[in-house]
Amino acid sequence: MSARIFVGERRVDAIAADDRGLAYGDGLFETLRVHRGEAPWWDAHWSRLARGAERLRLSLPEQARVRDQAAALLENVDAGALKLIVSRGSGGRGYALPTTNTPTWILSAHPLPPSARAGSTLLRWCDTRLSIQPALAGLKHCNRLEQVLARAEWNDAAATHRDADEGLMLDTDECVVGATAANLFALVDGRWLTPRIDRCGVAGVCRAWVLSELQAGEVRLSAQQIESAQAIFLCNAVRGILPVARLGERAWAPHPQVSALRDRLAAAVPMFAVNE
Amino acid sequence: MSARIFVGERRVDAIAADDRGLAYGDGLFETLRVHRGEAPWWDAHWSRLARGAERLRLSLPEQARVRDQAAALLENVDAGALKLIVSRGSGGRGYALPTTNTPTWILSAHPLPPSARAGSTLLRWCDTRLSIQPALAGLKHCNRLEQVLARAEWNDAAATHRDADEGLMLDTDECVVGATAANLFALVDGRWLTPRIDRCGVAGVCRAWVLSELQAGEVRLSAQQIESAQAIFLCNAVRGILPVARLGERAWAPHPQVSALRDRLAAAVPMFAVNE
Repeated sequence: MSARIFVGERRVDAIAADDRGLAYGDGLFETLRVHRGEAPWWDAHWSRLARGAERLRLSLPEQARVRDQAAALLENVDAGALKLIVSRGSGGRGYALPTTNTPTWILSAHPLPPSARAGSTLLRWCDTRLSIQPALAGLKHCNRLEQVLARAEWNDAAATHRDADEGLMLDTDECVVGATAANLFALVDGRWLTPRIDRCGVAGVCRAWVLSELQAGEVRLSAQQIESAQAIFLCNAVRGILPVARLGERAWAPHPQVSALRDRLAAAVPMFAVNE
Repeated sequence: MSARIFVGERRVDAIAADDRGLAYGDGLFETLRVHRGEAPWWDAHWSRLARGAERLRLSLPEQARVRDQAAALLENVDAGALKLIVSRGSGGRGYALPTTNTPTWILSAHPLPPSARAGSTLLRWCDTRLSIQPALAGLKHCNRLEQVLARAEWNDAAATHRDADEGLMLDTDECVVGATAANLFALVDGRWLTPRIDRCGVAGVCRAWVLSELQAGEVRLSAQQIESAQAIFLCNAVRGILPVARLGERAWAPHPQVSALRDRLAAAVPMFAVNE
């Protein structure tokens, strides 16, 4: 990983010990797919970041400055992921907002995650529930212990779960929210649906593209509705559309509407064509 | 603030850019009251930290090493607060636990907060709700955006809230949980009660002392029960027992049972006698 750290305008060598990102997860992040040194979905990511910053009353660095630094970091990156964290910066002990807020921001470049096996993702249900918190719903904030706990449920030595690529999470009301690091769409009675994210979950950048493309409905969905769907897929802004082959015992054959959507995404945003 | 930062056994100059504490709030913290260079409640704080680490599957540094470093940092501190943060340390992009976990830990020394005015705390109700998450309830973890948002509700220029010292929080089921940074006790029909912390809230070290001392009951409490209580007080491990004089429009006269409890705490743990 190569990273650059800034406090306000100033590049620094390291994160301060009293950074509120570390103390309270008091920050936001974005993960952008990089293609030939550029982040084609930059504007959508920055818009989401700005909405989150407004809700958390967090100052953002100047966009042009961040973008210049990202360009420098990505100069020789052909394909990868760019992560941007913006925290509220240094602050005294205690939850009260500091009287002045100079954000800390970190840019880091990462390799792309391995492709889904043969283009098809294997899912499991997570036991960890997402709590219902409308004040934070939709934001890509840095309070992510629920996702950490959910993701830790597999990749253990437990043989039964060894072959899961991702896990689906329910909220504490037993409504489906999405995967630990991706949004979920399901074809139910001929219509594409996706969980509402007004009480928890993340307003994914790729989700927004798919919502508009499929004219999908945002609804509450039960686990049973997902398991009985005609097709399901995941999406996120780094991996694009991920067809799902299996969820626990339930298996799906490849669905032509999902393949068609992948093709449309690849046509609209060519970087998503190159990672097979 | 003076601080010392460590990665595992090694003292370092700064936090790494890929620390999971910063990325996800993936860590725990403790805030201990310091008296004449010592932290008299060390054992209770370390026990809570160890319970949290077990639930989050987070490695802790060796206790003796942390305690030695704390002693060095506090050598000339007569009265203050010691903060310890333990994060899961460096990790790659993504929620999956790193295959090896070398914790990052930070010790910092802080002045004591100002005494409550004339020994009596003014409270308000917060609008921000605490979400219900049994998997994290009780832990002093670093996912604290809810507290940050709640604490930001006052200290604004808003004149109506200007005179609040602390805010009480309800959960999303409208049960009272406690203050943003303290636990709450209420005398209801002659019996001391405190909110259960099985769904959210923090298992405070001072709360444990009070629970045992008062043989208090752990129950679900409504806002109305708090407002109609004979007396209420807050407690935390830095400030001890904080009698409450007012909550919004509701005022309480000093209550002899609260004064008596403060005296007992000061007798049991002398550092709590010195901050008036």
